[in-house]
Amino acid sequence: MSQLVNHCHRLRQRPVGRLTDDDLEFVAEPVPKITHNQALIQTLFLSLDPAARIWVSDVHYSLPPVKIGNVMRGIGIGRVIESRRNDMKAGDLVSGLTGWQRYAIADDEANEGPFTVVPPLHRDLPLSAVLGPLGHTGITAYLGVHDIARPQRGETMVVSAAAGAVGSIAGQIGKAHGARVVGIAGSPDKCRHVVETLGFDSCINHRDQAWRQQLDQATPDGIDVDFENVGGPIMNHVLSRLNIGARVALCGLISEYNTYDARPDTRRCQPNIARSLMVSRALIQSFLVLDHPDRFDEAIEYLSQMIGDGKLTYDETIIEGLENAPCALQQLFDGAIRGKLLIKVSE
Amino acid sequence: MSQLVNHCHRLRQRPVGRLTDDDLEFVAEPVPKITHNQALIQTLFLSLDPAARIWVSDVHYSLPPVKIGNVMRGIGIGRVIESRRNDMKAGDLVSGLTGWQRYAIADDEANEGPFTVVPPLHRDLPLSAVLGPLGHTGITAYLGVHDIARPQRGETMVVSAAAGAVGSIAGQIGKAHGARVVGIAGSPDKCRHVVETLGFDSCINHRDQAWRQQLDQATPDGIDVDFENVGGPIMNHVLSRLNIGARVALCGLISEYNTYDARPDTRRCQPNIARSLMVSRALIQSFLVLDHPDRFDEAIEYLSQMIGDGKLTYDETIIEGLENAPCALQQLFDGAIRGKLLIKVSE
Repeated sequence: MSQLVNHCHRLRQRPVGRLTDDDLEFVAEPVPKITHNQALIQTLFLSLDPAARIWVSDVHYSLPPVKIGNVMRGIGIGRVIESRRNDMKAGDLVSGLTGWQRYAIADDEANEGPFTVVPPLHRDLPLSAVLGPLGHTGITAYLGVHDIARPQRGETMVVSAAAGAVGSIAGQIGKAHGARVVGIAGSPDKCRHVVETLGFDSCINHRDQAWRQQLDQATPDGIDVDFENVGGPIMNHVLSRLNIGARVALCGLISEYNTYDARPDTRRCQPNIARSLMVSRALIQSFLVLDHPDRFDEAIEYLSQMIGDGKLTYDETIIEGLENAPCALQQLFDGAIRGKLLIKVSE
Repeated sequence: MSQLVNHCHRLRQRPVGRLTDDDLEFVAEPVPKITHNQALIQTLFLSLDPAARIWVSDVHYSLPPVKIGNVMRGIGIGRVIESRRNDMKAGDLVSGLTGWQRYAIADDEANEGPFTVVPPLHRDLPLSAVLGPLGHTGITAYLGVHDIARPQRGETMVVSAAAGAVGSIAGQIGKAHGARVVGIAGSPDKCRHVVETLGFDSCINHRDQAWRQQLDQATPDGIDVDFENVGGPIMNHVLSRLNIGARVALCGLISEYNTYDARPDTRRCQPNIARSLMVSRALIQSFLVLDHPDRFDEAIEYLSQMIGDGKLTYDETIIEGLENAPCALQQLFDGAIRGKLLIKVSE
C-alpha cells in the first residue's frame, strides 16, 4: 500500500478577506503507514461548510484555528482501506474530520474528533445524505429549531439563507411545527424553489432593492422566531421586527466570516441588535452541533422519519474533484450554491 | 377638597437626544373629583428609572409612548387621600404608575397598570424601599439573575452599572450564588463603594483609559455571566470575553436610550455582538419586570430575607421636590447617582 499518493490542501497563510488560492497549497504526498489504533480512510465525500472560513482565521470556534502548514479541516465520509482499530474494518464507511485530503488517518487520539462507522443507511438514501439531512447539517437544523427557536402553531418564523443546506431543512421543520415560515434567499430562482419545492409560505429575495418592505409585508404580525444563518443587515432588519418573547436561533453569520481576520474591534459600537432584543424581551442563543453528540440519534430518527413521510425535501450540490474545494467554498460565500455543498473526492 | 392643586410634568414634545427642560412643562392644575372605583392619591416618592427616556420616545417598550400633552409616566408610592374603591381606604399606602405629579387618580381601568396597597413593611425598612430593593428595582435584579444569568459557584459574573439601583443588587445576588462578581462603574469612588460596601470581588472604572485591559485582567478565566445594564462599547467588550455557554441577562442599555428618537437604522451593520454570541454559543435574553407580576411575592420574600440576613446592602439617592425630576433624570444618565434614584414629592 506504500505507493498510495495523498493529495491534500495545506494552509499556507491565513486569508485576509476572502479565502483565495494563495492561502492554500494543493500538494501530493506519500500516505503514511498506519500504526496501532489507526485506520486508513479513502475520502469519498467532503462537506464544505461556512465554518471552514472561521477555522482558517485566528478565531477559536469549537476547535482551534487550523495551524499554518496543516491539512485544511473538514468533515467527510470515506471508506476504510486498512484498519488496525477494533471498531472498524476494511470496507466500512466512516464519517469524521477527514480534512481536505484524499486519504485520512482515522486516529481518535490524534484527531480533533472521533471517526464513527456510518450505520446502514435509512430508506435507500444516497451516501451523501450522511453529510446532509442525516448528518451535521440536518442535526444543526433540528437542534436549532427544537431547542431554541421552538416555533408554535400559527407563529411567524423567518429563515435566512433559506435555500442553503441548514436553512432549507430548518424551515421545513418549522412548517412541521405549524409555523408560517418566511424564507430569505439571494435570487428569484432560489425563492421560487424555496416556496414551490420546499413548501415555505413565502420567500424574500434580499438582492431586491425593496427587500425590507417585502419582508415587512410578508410578516404583518411581526416575527416570533428567527433561524439566523446570515447576520449583517439582514439579521438587523429581522431583529427589528421581533415580537415580545421572540426566539432567535443563532446558527451562522455567513455574511461576516470573511471579516474574521483578527479579534473583533470592540470599540466600534452598533446598538441595533441589542436594542431590538431589549425592546422585544427576546432570547437569542447560538449553538453548535458538535457540542451535542448525545442528541444525534434522536435528531437522525426525527429527520429520517420526515424524509420517509415525504415532509422533508433536501438539495445537494456535488462538485467533482478535491482540487476544486477552495473555489467551491467561494461559491458558497457568493450564494451560488443551492442546498448542501459536497466535494466528490473518490468514487 | 376641590381647592387642591396638582403640579405635574406634561410632555410637550419628544426629546431629540437628551431630555431637556423644553421637552416637559411643569404645570399647576386643579385636582379633578374622583368618581366610583377611583381613589385620590398624594404622591410621596417617585421612582426615576432609565426607562423613562424610552417612554418619551416613539418606541413601544412594555407600554405605548407617553402621548404629547400627557403627564409623564413614572412609578411611585403615595397615600390615599380619598377613596371610592373597595380595595383601598383613606390613609392607605399604595404603589403604581402615579406619574410625575403631586396627585394621582388611582383608576385601574383608566390607568396603564394597577395600583396596589403596599403590605406592611418588612423589618422596619423605610417606605422608599418599596420602590428599591423590595420593588420593581430589586425584583428586576432577582428575575435577571435567577431566570437568565443563573451564576454557578466559581463562575465569573460581570455587572455593568454596578453602583446603580439594579446592578448593585444583581451583583450581591450573584455573590450569594457563589459567583466571583466583577463590577463596572463610572468613577473610582463608585468602584470603591462597590467593592468595600457591596462586597463585589472587584470593580473596573470604565472612564479609565485602560478599562479594557483592566477588565481582561479581572476576568482571567473569561466571563460566564453578564448582567447587562449599559450596552454600547462596554457590552461589546464584555461579550467578546464570553465563555462557551455563557448567559447574558439583558436588563438595560442606558448608554443608548438618548438615541431612541426614531426607528433603529437597520442599515448600519456592526457584527461584534452577534459574532461574540456565536463563537461562545452564548444565550442573551432580555426581560422586563412588568411582564412577571406572578413572581413578585417570591422575589420580595427572597430579597427581604437577604436584607434580614445582612447580605444585601442597598443605596438610594433621594432628591427633594417634584420640580427637580427632569434634572435628576439627567443626572442618572450622567452617571452622577449612586443606587436607587427617588424624588421625594411630599412628606
